Amino acid sequence: MRKICVVVGSRANYSSIKSALAAIKARPDLELQLVVGASALLDRYGSVVNVIKKDGFSPSASVYMLVEGETPTTMAKSTGLGLMELSSVFDNLKPDIVLTVGDRFETMATTLAAAYMNIPLAHTMGGEVSGTIDESIRHAVTKFSHIHFPACQDAADRIVRMGERREDVFLVGCPRIDLVAEIVRNDGKDPGPELFKEGVGGTFDLAKPFVIVSQHPVTTEYGEGERQINETLKAVQELGLPAIVLWPNADAGSEDVARGIRKFREHEDAAQFHYFKNFPLETYVRLMARAACVIGNSSASIREGAYVGVPAVNVGSRQQGRQRGKNVIDVDHQRGAIAEAVNKQLEHGRYPPEPIYGDGKAGERIAKVLAECRPQLQKRITY
Amino acid sequence: MRKICVVVGSRANYSSIKSALAAIKARPDLELQLVVGASALLDRYGSVVNVIKKDGFSPSASVYMLVEGETPTTMAKSTGLGLMELSSVFDNLKPDIVLTVGDRFETMATTLAAAYMNIPLAHTMGGEVSGTIDESIRHAVTKFSHIHFPACQDAADRIVRMGERREDVFLVGCPRIDLVAEIVRNDGKDPGPELFKEGVGGTFDLAKPFVIVSQHPVTTEYGEGERQINETLKAVQELGLPAIVLWPNADAGSEDVARGIRKFREHEDAAQFHYFKNFPLETYVRLMARAACVIGNSSASIREGAYVGVPAVNVGSRQQGRQRGKNVIDVDHQRGAIAEAVNKQLEHGRYPPEPIYGDGKAGERIAKVLAECRPQLQKRITY
Amino acid sequence: MRKICVVVGSRANYSSIKSALAAIKARPDLELQLVVGASALLDRYGSVVNVIKKDGFSPSASVYMLVEGETPTTMAKSTGLGLMELSSVFDNLKPDIVLTVGDRFETMATTLAAAYMNIPLAHTMGGEVSGTIDESIRHAVTKFSHIHFPACQDAADRIVRMGERREDVFLVGCPRIDLVAEIVRNDGKDPGPELFKEGVGGTFDLAKPFVIVSQHPVTTEYGEGERQINETLKAVQELGLPAIVLWPNADAGSEDVARGIRKFREHEDAAQFHYFKNFPLETYVRLMARAACVIGNSSASIREGAYVGVPAVNVGSRQQGRQRGKNVIDVDHQRGAIAEAVNKQLEHGRYPPEPIYGDGKAGERIAKVLAECRPQLQKRITY
Amino acid sequence: MRKICVVVGSRANYSSIKSALAAIKARPDLELQLVVGASALLDRYGSVVNVIKKDGFSPSASVYMLVEGETPTTMAKSTGLGLMELSSVFDNLKPDIVLTVGDRFETMATTLAAAYMNIPLAHTMGGEVSGTIDESIRHAVTKFSHIHFPACQDAADRIVRMGERREDVFLVGCPRIDLVAEIVRNDGKDPGPELFKEGVGGTFDLAKPFVIVSQHPVTTEYGEGERQINETLKAVQELGLPAIVLWPNADAGSEDVARGIRKFREHEDAAQFHYFKNFPLETYVRLMARAACVIGNSSASIREGAYVGVPAVNVGSRQQGRQRGKNVIDVDHQRGAIAEAVNKQLEHGRYPPEPIYGDGKAGERIAKVLAECRPQLQKRITY
Repeated sequence: MRKICVVVGSRANYSSIKSALAAIKARPDLELQLVVGASALLDRYGSVVNVIKKDGFSPSASVYMLVEGETPTTMAKSTGLGLMELSSVFDNLKPDIVLTVGDRFETMATTLAAAYMNIPLAHTMGGEVSGTIDESIRHAVTKFSHIHFPACQDAADRIVRMGERREDVFLVGCPRIDLVAEIVRNDGKDPGPELFKEGVGGTFDLAKPFVIVSQHPVTTEYGEGERQINETLKAVQELGLPAIVLWPNADAGSEDVARGIRKFREHEDAAQFHYFKNFPLETYVRLMARAACVIGNSSASIREGAYVGVPAVNVGSRQQGRQRGKNVIDVDHQRGAIAEAVNKQLEHGRYPPEPIYGDGKAGERIAKVLAECRPQLQKRITY
Repeated sequence: MRKICVVVGSRANYSSIKSALAAIKARPDLELQLVVGASALLDRYGSVVNVIKKDGFSPSASVYMLVEGETPTTMAKSTGLGLMELSSVFDNLKPDIVLTVGDRFETMATTLAAAYMNIPLAHTMGGEVSGTIDESIRHAVTKFSHIHFPACQDAADRIVRMGERREDVFLVGCPRIDLVAEIVRNDGKDPGPELFKEGVGGTFDLAKPFVIVSQHPVTTEYGEGERQINETLKAVQELGLPAIVLWPNADAGSEDVARGIRKFREHEDAAQFHYFKNFPLETYVRLMARAACVIGNSSASIREGAYVGVPAVNVGSRQQGRQRGKNVIDVDHQRGAIAEAVNKQLEHGRYPPEPIYGDGKAGERIAKVLAECRPQLQKRITY
Repeated sequence: MRKICVVVGSRANYSSIKSALAAIKARPDLELQLVVGASALLDRYGSVVNVIKKDGFSPSASVYMLVEGETPTTMAKSTGLGLMELSSVFDNLKPDIVLTVGDRFETMATTLAAAYMNIPLAHTMGGEVSGTIDESIRHAVTKFSHIHFPACQDAADRIVRMGERREDVFLVGCPRIDLVAEIVRNDGKDPGPELFKEGVGGTFDLAKPFVIVSQHPVTTEYGEGERQINETLKAVQELGLPAIVLWPNADAGSEDVARGIRKFREHEDAAQFHYFKNFPLETYVRLMARAACVIGNSSASIREGAYVGVPAVNVGSRQQGRQRGKNVIDVDHQRGAIAEAVNKQLEHGRYPPEPIYGDGKAGERIAKVLAECRPQLQKRITY
Repeated sequence: MRKICVVVGSRANYSSIKSALAAIKARPDLELQLVVGASALLDRYGSVVNVIKKDGFSPSASVYMLVEGETPTTMAKSTGLGLMELSSVFDNLKPDIVLTVGDRFETMATTLAAAYMNIPLAHTMGGEVSGTIDESIRHAVTKFSHIHFPACQDAADRIVRMGERREDVFLVGCPRIDLVAEIVRNDGKDPGPELFKEGVGGTFDLAKPFVIVSQHPVTTEYGEGERQINETLKAVQELGLPAIVLWPNADAGSEDVARGIRKFREHEDAAQFHYFKNFPLETYVRLMARAACVIGNSSASIREGAYVGVPAVNVGSRQQGRQRGKNVIDVDHQRGAIAEAVNKQLEHGRYPPEPIYGDGKAGERIAKVLAECRPQLQKRITY
C-alpha cells in the first residue's frame, strides 16, 4: 500500500487539498499520512488543526516551524526550520510519495526535504503566475517535482514549457473548486447569525448588501502593508457599506497589515466593520455567494470567485498575471480607485459561473494518479 | 558602491568562482563580501578557508552548516541549517546582490536566504544538465535568480527556454576555465615532488604514465557508493598503473565512497596508489596536463578536461547529459568496462584543446555585469 | 577595553538590567555590546527594541529566536534556536564577558552559548527561589556562571551553598530597583490621561481607586492558564473596581492566558477594564504608586512592590518561596479567595517602603565589578 | 507501564548506561524507549548504533545533531540542534521519565528538552568533579533533574549539598562497572589477534608489555590539543613500548587531537603503534587487564581502572578533582614527566581492585527506582 504524505501548513492550503485528502483516505491502495504544521497549528491563526481533526483526519505528525517575526529574515529562518523538522518527520513516516500544495514557505521546506531524501514529489497548483516571492517558489517547486497537478490548462502548458515531461503533467483542476462546487450544490445555507458570535465587531444583516475585505502582504513590497490595507479600509469606509474584514496570512509583512487593521479598528469610527481571524471555506463561499463585492488581493476572488460569480475588485500586484474571469476588476492601492471600482461592481451585480479552475473532481483524479503513477526519481530537463 | 556577497562552501566552488572574486575585488565600484561555509571550513575537507586567505581574500563571515552524517536526511538538515545561518549573515552584511555558484546544497541555502530577504540573486553555471539531485537544485536556483551567468551556449539557451528573460542571461563562460587558462599559459611547472609529502602513500614518478581517480557519490543512488568506487579502484589496480586517488566531496553518500577507499587502502596491496584529500586547482590542472587518463565521475574531466585535452573515462550516471568534448569515453560501474576504456584512452593519447566552457575571461565579465546591471526584483515567467 | 555583551530578550529583562546597561556604557574602560532578541523584537509584545533605542542604546545585533506556538515543545525549540543564533552572534562580537539576566529561556540559551564558547559569564538575579521551570533554569545558570550578582542577601547565601566561590558572589541589589528608586524620587508625575489612548478599553480616572492585574502562565501547570486568569478576572469583576489588565509574557502557556483574557473581554460586560500589552517600568511604578491593589502572579508586586509599598494579592504557585515584604497576601486560584484578599488590602491601604531588593545603586556596582574582576574560566565546585 | 526514554549519544555513554538499559528492558513494568544520536550514529566514530542493535536493543529514534566543525561555536550549535530535534522526539514518544547520562553536550540537550516539556528527568553520574565544561554541564543537569543516580558516596553527598532533596538521591554505583565486573568474572578471553585486523598499524603480541594511550581535548584549553597529544605520543615513543592509540571523542578540539595523531603517524617512525577508532568496552577492559600502563586523560583509567587495578598515568587537567584509587599517577603535559611516571608504573606492576565506583549492580537498582519512584515535577531548592 502506497503511503502518501501531505503537509498542510495553513488554512488556505488545507482548503486547497482537502478533497484530495479525502480521496486518498478513501482508496484502499493508498495510506494517507497527514502532517500539520506552521500556522495551521497556531491559535492566533485559528487553530486549523482542530478543523482538520473535526473533518475526520488524524494527523501523523505536528510540526512547529514558524520563527516569530514575520520579517523577510524570519521567513527564511522558518523555511530552514521547517526543512530541518520535516526531514525528521519523513525519516519517521517513510512515505512513498510526498504531495505538496501551492507556493508557500512550508511548500518549499516540504519540497526540499523530500528532494534531498529521494522521495518522489507531487505538486498541486504549479505553473500558475502570480506576484511576490510565491512566483519563484512555485516554479522552483515544479523543477523539483516528479508529478504535476496543475489546476488549469495555461498552467499545465507552462509546466511543460519549463522542461518537464508531458507524461508527468496531469491536468486535474483545483481541489478547492471541489469544495466550492459541493457548497454551491448544497446551496441555501445561511452562514450567520451564529457567525457573528465569533470575531470582533457588531452583528449585521447578511440579507442587505455587504462587502468582504481580504488583503495579504506582498513580500516584495515589504514595509508597505500598513499603508496598503489602510487605503482599502478607507475606501470601504467611504462607501458606507457593512464589511467583513479578514486578518492576513502568516507571511513576511503580515504584522504590517495586521497593525494597519488594528489601528483602523481602534481609531476609526466604523461600526459596520466586523473582523474575523479566518473562515472555513464553507463559510467563505457562502459569504461570497451573497456578497455585493469582494475586495483585496486574495486569490479566492479570482479562483473560487470565478466559479461562484461574485463581483471582485483586485487591488495591487499580488495576483498579477493570474488567469481570471469576467468577475474581476483590477486597481492600484489608492482609495479613490478602489471605491470607484467597487461602485462599478455594485452596479453590475453578480456574474455567471466560469469553471476555469476545475469542475469539482480534482481530488479523485489526484488520488487515482498517486495510486497508479510510476514516478522517475532522477529528473532530467527535456531540452 | 555595490556590495556583492558570494558564499563559497567547498573547494570545488571556490575554484569555480575565484577569478570572479578577484575581478569583483579589483573593481572600484564593487565591494566584495566573501562568506566561507560548509565543507570549506573543515579540516577534514582540507581547510579550503586557509587557501582562500592565502590568496588574499578576507572572509566577512564563516558559516558552519554541515550536520554530520552525510545521509539524505542530514543533507536536508544541512540545507535548513545553512538557510537559518545565512539569513543572519545577510542581515548583517546587507548585500546589494548575492552571487551563488553551481548546484550544491549550500547553493540552495544561499538562494533561499537571498530570495526571502528580497536581495537580487546572480547565479553561475545555471542551465547545464547533470544527474543526481544537483539537476533539480540547479534549475530551481535558476527560477529564483535575477541574473544568470551560464558557462556555455547550450546552458544559456536552456535558461531562456525555462522562462527567464533573455536580457537577464549573460553568456560569460566558466570562471574555472579562467584559472585553467592561466595555468596552461604559465605551463611547465612540475606539481611534484613536494606534492607527495602530502597525502598518504608512496612517492611516484610523474614523468612515467599515471592515472587520476576522482569519484563522488550519486545522491539518487544512495548506498551504492562503496561498491561503485570499488569497481573503479579494482579496474585501476588490474591495469597496474600508478594512481592518484582523491577523497570524495561532502555530500549524501560521501561516507560510503570514503569507506570504500579506506577498505581498499587497508586490505589491498596497491603500493602504486597515493591518496589525497584535495588539490588546489593549479595542482589538479598540472596533473591533468600530464596524466595518461582521468577516471571517475568528476565534472573536471569534462569541463577543464576539454580545455586541457586530457583523455578521460567517465563512470556512471553523475555527468549524464553534460555537454562534453572528444576527450571523454563513458562507461558503467563495471571494472571490466572501466579497464577497457582506460586502455583505449592510453592508446589514443592526448587530445587537442576544446574551449567549450569558456575562453578565460569569465570573471571579468561577471564583475562588469554585477556593477552595471539593474536587476528586476519581482520575477515573472516570460510565458 | 573590556567588551561586555548583554542579551535582552523581553520587556521584563530590559527593566531588570537597564541601569546596569547605562552604567556599563558610561564607563570608559568598558564597551557595551547589546543584543536584543526573542519577544523584545516583536510587535505583538510591544516592540521593546524601540524603547531601548529611544533610551539611547544601539543594539549590536538582533536575534529572532521564538518558535511560534508557546507550547512546552516550542519553548524547548526556541531555546535551541536561540543557542544556535547566539553562538553566531558571540562569534562576531567576541565579547570578553557575557552578562545574562534572570531565568528565562533566552537566559538559558545565552548561558550555554557563552559557556561552550569559553566566554566568562556573569549573572544577575541568581539564587532566588520561585516556582515553574524558572527555578531550575536559574540555578542551572548559576552553575555555569563565573560572576554572580544576586539581588538580596538570601540569594547570595544560597549561591555560595550551591558550591560557588564566595569571592565570585557580589551582593549588588537588583538593577530594577535602581529605576524604581529614581521614579519614586521624581515622583508626582501622572501616568495618564495620555495612557488610555493606548491599549483597548475605556478611559478611567486614576484619582479614584483602581487595581492592576498581571498574571502569567505557570509552565509546570501548562493547560491551566485560561482557567486561572478567568478566576482572577471574575474576582475583579465582582469587586466592581476599575482594572488595568496586562497581557502575559511570551512563555509556554501564554496563549492560554491570552485566550482567557480575550474571551473575557469579548463575552463579559466589563466596561471598567482596560487592556494593555505592556508598560514601560516608569508607567508601571507610577501606577503601582497609585493603585489600590496589584493582583496576579507577577514578581513586580513582590520586588518593586516592596519598595513602592503597594498592597498586593499574589495568586497561585508562581512566586512561591520568593522573599517578600509585608505588602503581600498569598491566595489560591479561586475567585472567592482572591476577592476576599483584595478586600482586606483595600481596607489596609498602602504600606511603608521595604528596600529588600536593593538601594538603587545596583547598576553602578555591577559595572565596576565587570571592569575589575578577573574571572576564572575553569569552574570547580567548592566541596 | 512506564515509558523510560534514554538518549545515548556516544560510545562512552553507551557503556555507561548499557546495564541499566538491559535492566529496564527486562522489567515488565517498564518500557524502554532508546534514542540514539550524535556521534553514536556516525561512521567515523565507529557506528556505535550497530553495536547497540547487535546487543539486542531496538532504537525508537535516531537523532543527527552534530554540526560539523568541533569548534566551541559548533559545540554550542550542536547542543541547540540537539535540543530542537529531541523535543520533537519526546513529543512523539511521550515518555514518562527521561534518563540522561553524564555530562556531554547531548546530555545538556536531552536535559533541556525534558525540562521544558515537563517530563521528569533522571540523571546518572551526577555530583562528580572534573575539569572542562563538563564540570558545569554536570552540575547544571543536577539542578534540572528530579531523580539522581550518583556513582559514588562523594558525589551523592555533593548533590544533596547543592540543594537537592535527599530522598531524590539514589546511590546506585556506576552502570559501567556492572559491565567491567561481568567481564572480569568471565576473564581469560584474549582480545586479539582478531583485534589487529581492525585499525591501522602492525600486529603486536599482547603477551608482551604494551601501553594504551587515550587522550581527549580539554574544551577550556581549546587549541592546545595537538601539542598535548604530541607530548604524550613522543613520551611513549621514547619508552619504546608497543602502544595502542585511540582516536578522541567528538568534542570541541577533537580535530586538534586527531590532527596531532595523524601527523605523528605520518611523519614518525613508530611501527610499534596501532591506531583504533574505538573499542567495545569488553575489549577495552580486557586490554586494561593486560596493559602495563594506561596513559592519557580518559576517565576510564580512573573509574574502570580502579576496579581492574591497571597502572595509570593521568595527564593534564581533564580529570582533576575526580575521586581516584591508588592506581593513578598524575602528571602535566610534558613528555619527560609522562615518561618518568610511566616508568614508575612499569616498575610497580598491577594494583589490587578498588570498587570505588560500584559493585556491579547499578543497572538493576536504577531500573527498580525508575519503576517505583514518584518524581515531584516542580523542583524547589532545599534551602
